[in-house]
Amino acid sequence: MSQKIYVGIDVGGTAIKVGLCNENGDLLHTYEGPTETNKGTDAILENIAAYARAIVAESSYEWEQVGGVGVGIAGFLDIPSGYIKFAPNLKIRDVNLKDYLEAKLATKVLVNNDANVAALGEAWAGAGKGIDHCVCYTLGTGVGGGIIIGGKIVEGFAGMAGELGHIAIVPDLEAIQCGCGKMGCLETVSSATGIIRMAKDAVERGDRTTLAQVTDIMAKDVIDAAKAGDEVAMRIVSRAAYYLGRSMALMAVVLNPECFIIGGGVSKAGEFLFEQIREVFEKYTQKEAKDGVKIIPATLGNNAGVVGAAGLILRS
Amino acid sequence: MSQKIYVGIDVGGTAIKVGLCNENGDLLHTYEGPTETNKGTDAILENIAAYARAIVAESSYEWEQVGGVGVGIAGFLDIPSGYIKFAPNLKIRDVNLKDYLEAKLATKVLVNNDANVAALGEAWAGAGKGIDHCVCYTLGTGVGGGIIIGGKIVEGFAGMAGELGHIAIVPDLEAIQCGCGKMGCLETVSSATGIIRMAKDAVERGDRTTLAQVTDIMAKDVIDAAKAGDEVAMRIVSRAAYYLGRSMALMAVVLNPECFIIGGGVSKAGEFLFEQIREVFEKYTQKEAKDGVKIIPATLGNNAGVVGAAGLILRS
Repeated sequence: MSQKIYVGIDVGGTAIKVGLCNENGDLLHTYEGPTETNKGTDAILENIAAYARAIVAESSYEWEQVGGVGVGIAGFLDIPSGYIKFAPNLKIRDVNLKDYLEAKLATKVLVNNDANVAALGEAWAGAGKGIDHCVCYTLGTGVGGGIIIGGKIVEGFAGMAGELGHIAIVPDLEAIQCGCGKMGCLETVSSATGIIRMAKDAVERGDRTTLAQVTDIMAKDVIDAAKAGDEVAMRIVSRAAYYLGRSMALMAVVLNPECFIIGGGVSKAGEFLFEQIREVFEKYTQKEAKDGVKIIPATLGNNAGVVGAAGLILRS
Repeated sequence: MSQKIYVGIDVGGTAIKVGLCNENGDLLHTYEGPTETNKGTDAILENIAAYARAIVAESSYEWEQVGGVGVGIAGFLDIPSGYIKFAPNLKIRDVNLKDYLEAKLATKVLVNNDANVAALGEAWAGAGKGIDHCVCYTLGTGVGGGIIIGGKIVEGFAGMAGELGHIAIVPDLEAIQCGCGKMGCLETVSSATGIIRMAKDAVERGDRTTLAQVTDIMAKDVIDAAKAGDEVAMRIVSRAAYYLGRSMALMAVVLNPECFIIGGGVSKAGEFLFEQIREVFEKYTQKEAKDGVKIIPATLGNNAGVVGAAGLILRS
C-alpha cells in the first residue's frame, strides 16, 4: 500500500477528464465527468475536486497514496501560484485554483496550462519517453505547444513560453492576421482552422479542386483530398507542413531538442504529413542541429493531458 | 580559509584569460597569458593548466579552496564529457579537455562553449543578476548566443542550443547565404561582419554615403555615420536592429525570457541601437509575452567569459 499515485486532471469546456498514474507515468485508471460550465465557477471547482476524489474511490488505491494532484487548464494563468486570471472557455476569472483544491483535497496541487501539460505527458510517458529535451506541437483549432527541457516544462517569465502557434513564421508578404492580432503566426497556416481557411479561400476563388463539392469543409477533408492527389489540397497541406518544418528549423538552433512530437487532430494525417515536415526540416536546418533529431507523432492521444497533469507533481 | 573560490578560463585563439570568482560571481582576480596556438595542442593544454594554477598562486587564496574549474572554448564540443571534437581557431581536434584538466588540477572541471559561458556570466553576475530566465546575444564577428533557464545554460541535444546567429530570420527573397551554408541567418545582417558587408555593398553600388570616404570600413564607422545622420548608414543599422528585434519577438513566444541581454562590439552603439531593437520587439511581440520584458546591454564586457566559466561549477 506504500506505492504513490498521482492524479492528473484535464479541465475542458465540456468535460473534465481525470487520470491516475504511477511514478512511471503508466495510466492506471481514468474517469470523466461533465464540467457544467453553465452552472458557474463554484460548480466547476466543486466538480474538479469531486472527480479527483471519485477516481481514487473507484480505483484499488487509497487517498493516502496520492502524492499530489496536477491540473491542466486553458487560459491565462499565474502558473507558480496556480491562479486563474481568465479561462475564457470556462468563464472563470480571478480564482486561485491551487489554493482551492489544496484546501479541499489536503494534498499538493500544481496547475499549468493545457498545452504545457499535454507536452509534459508526451515527454514523460508518451512519444518522448526517456527523452529529456523535446518540443511538442498540438495541431488542433490552434497550434499549441510545450517545451520540455531536462524533463521539465519551460514556463517562461509570464507563462508564455511554448506558444509555438504564435511564432511569426509566414513572411510578411504572404501573412494574414492571427487571432492574437499579430501577422503571420504559425497557427494561421498549420492549424485545422488555417487549413480550412486556405481550402475555403481556394474554393471561393474558383480553384479546380474536389473540395468544391464538400459542404462545410473540415481539415480531414483537405488532407484526404491531398492524399487522393487533389493538387489544390496538396498545396494547402504542403504549406501547413512547410511552415511547421521551418519553425522546427528555428527551434533546432535555439533549443536543439532531441525530438519534436506532433499531436492533435491534424497530426492524424500521419506519414503523409510527417514526411513533408521532415523534408523541410532537413533542408533548412544546420547539420549539427539536426543530426539524430526525430520528428514523431504523439502517442497518448487524448490522454496526454491527464498523464501530463499527473506528471506535474513529479516533474516540477 | 573555508571560503570556496571558482576558477573560470576563457580560451581564445591569442590569449587565455582566467578569473577567480566567489560564489556570488564577484570577480576577485584576473590573469592572462598567451595561448601559443602555434606550438600545438599539448602546449595549449599545458598553458591552460599552468594559468589556472598561476592565478590562484598570485592571489590570496589557496588551491585547496578551489571548488572547481570551468572552461569556455569556441568549437564543436561534446559538452557533458568535456570533449573537444574540433576547435578551429586553436587547431585542436579530438581531445578530452575535462579529463586532461581534472588529472592535472585535481579538481572538478566543466567545459562549455564560449557563447554559452559568456551568457551564463551575464545572467549570473552581470546584466541579468538575479534573473533566472534570460537570452543573451553577443554581436561580434558573428552573432553568438546563450540561453539561461532556471539559472542554467540550455545546451541542447548536441550542444547546438543558443545558436541564435543561425536563426533564419531574413525572408528568403532578401536573404544571402551565411557561412554555415544556410540562407538568411541572423548573423548575415546583425553581426559586425554583416554590417560591414552591407556598408561595402552600398559603397560599391554607388549609394550616396559618407562611408564612401572610409578605407577599410569597420562596424563602428557605420554606426558613427548612422548617428551622424548618414541615411545609408542609418538604413544598415536599422536593418541589423530590425532582425534582432524580430528574432527576440520569436524568442518571446518560445521561451518568454524575462530579459534579453546584448553584448559584443556592435552593442557598444548603445541606446541608439537598443531603442531601435526595442521598437521592433514592441511592435511584433504579443502583449502577454512582452509585458515587463527588458532588452538591456551586457555589463561584464570581456570578463563575461571568465565569470561565466567560473559559474559553470555552481550552475550545472
